[in-house]
Amino acid sequence: MSEETARTPEFVQSLERGLMVIRAFDAEHPQLTLSEVARATGLTRAAARRFLITLVEIGYMRTDGRLFSLRPRILELGYAYLSSLSLPEVAQPHMEALAAQVHESCSMSVLDDDEVVYVARVPTKRIMTIGISVGSRFPAYATSMGRVLLATQPAEWLDDYLARVELLPMTRRTVVDPAKLRVLLAKTASQGYALVDQELEEGLRSLAAPIRAENQTVVAALNISAHASRGSSDTIRRELLPPLLATAKRIEEDLRLASNP
Amino acid sequence: MSEETARTPEFVQSLERGLMVIRAFDAEHPQLTLSEVARATGLTRAAARRFLITLVEIGYMRTDGRLFSLRPRILELGYAYLSSLSLPEVAQPHMEALAAQVHESCSMSVLDDDEVVYVARVPTKRIMTIGISVGSRFPAYATSMGRVLLATQPAEWLDDYLARVELLPMTRRTVVDPAKLRVLLAKTASQGYALVDQELEEGLRSLAAPIRAENQTVVAALNISAHASRGSSDTIRRELLPPLLATAKRIEEDLRLASNP
Repeated sequence: MSEETARTPEFVQSLERGLMVIRAFDAEHPQLTLSEVARATGLTRAAARRFLITLVEIGYMRTDGRLFSLRPRILELGYAYLSSLSLPEVAQPHMEALAAQVHESCSMSVLDDDEVVYVARVPTKRIMTIGISVGSRFPAYATSMGRVLLATQPAEWLDDYLARVELLPMTRRTVVDPAKLRVLLAKTASQGYALVDQELEEGLRSLAAPIRAENQTVVAALNISAHASRGSSDTIRRELLPPLLATAKRIEEDLRLASNP
Repeated sequence: MSEETARTPEFVQSLERGLMVIRAFDAEHPQLTLSEVARATGLTRAAARRFLITLVEIGYMRTDGRLFSLRPRILELGYAYLSSLSLPEVAQPHMEALAAQVHESCSMSVLDDDEVVYVARVPTKRIMTIGISVGSRFPAYATSMGRVLLATQPAEWLDDYLARVELLPMTRRTVVDPAKLRVLLAKTASQGYALVDQELEEGLRSLAAPIRAENQTVVAALNISAHASRGSSDTIRRELLPPLLATAKRIEEDLRLASNP
């Protein structure tokens, strides 16, 4: 039960364990046997069996008696969150237009713990696409959207973040020195965008800008990512920054319309 | 506790109740107080409180002490399912190309219980978009994708379906006569596509085709939906059916490549 830690007395362990059973299924493990679920979650077979039976009864899982797999109804849990945000719905058509204009993937993220979480994404029509979808998470420090979101946090929060985060080298270019990262974040804040050059993955550059609500709070980050073959960082900035900023502005205008109809 | 029914002795009620608490949040209710959650779920305040505290501790919910709301981490539950399908990932770039070509929204669904569930969607850049996203559900009988998915079910399953389903008039055009629906489904199966003319919503026409795996099993349906202003049913069929079928074919080819690399 590696995922479980000490909890308050009111903590409902059955809920946590049931959610662990759901998370045991993924792209590499779309179908699992009872034993495999028990192994993946650290639960006893008897406990895993009770959760699997419950999930089958609720309609979140199916089984042929041996193999278990998730059913599409499970989507309602994630979409309870997504539908509670008006942001992706407002942004999506503008992101489609941007991706079509620049022929690169366009994404939107929010900060959650110390990671960026994708809440909208328009991939390009390339054969080599990247396996990123809504719900994907990356460490904030190594991504352009993360830099934008970190740069606009209160100073005190940022101090805590830089003290607690372990900056791991995702590539040989990743900035892993907290002092250097702090300088980059200050620059991001002052210039109003972040350009990250192959710090998350070799061959991948990305450019991000903040999306601000009417009260100027940053509610999300918008980015364009491009293969290194698209050109140098300077080319990326020259070609992609103007359409990125124009799209961010259009999304912000629509957000204001959506909140003050 | 209207959602709860009699269960097997092994049923874990805490898991079901915790999931009910998650589902209490949606677009109309992005933030709820403890009392509101208790009311929405039929749980006692004490029980609702324990589930909310648990969800906050797991990182699926946040609170300011009074209001609760979902956090993006909740997406990992729905995406455990989505990432277990290679289908949406394979289909997405082809759907983007189709939507760009015909300037209409393009969606992909699977059948779950008696409903279609959207697993991928590319909306158009219209101001008046429809509030449909991945995870949305509609009754199968009134939708083009549902007709395609029903039409390819085994005869015995279809008999059961037609006996049990309550055909409700979503508009004045919805086919609610089981015998007539059966004829339409036979036609759908023989012609290889379904055209639904304002049966789900006034002013909305949609055209769907099946996506088949290598063994010819229908794994999903692909559709284009268009406002009635686009033209008559004949116009829709003439203009949109060829690109729809061509896109379905390309997705099927890529699916075969993905499963036999």
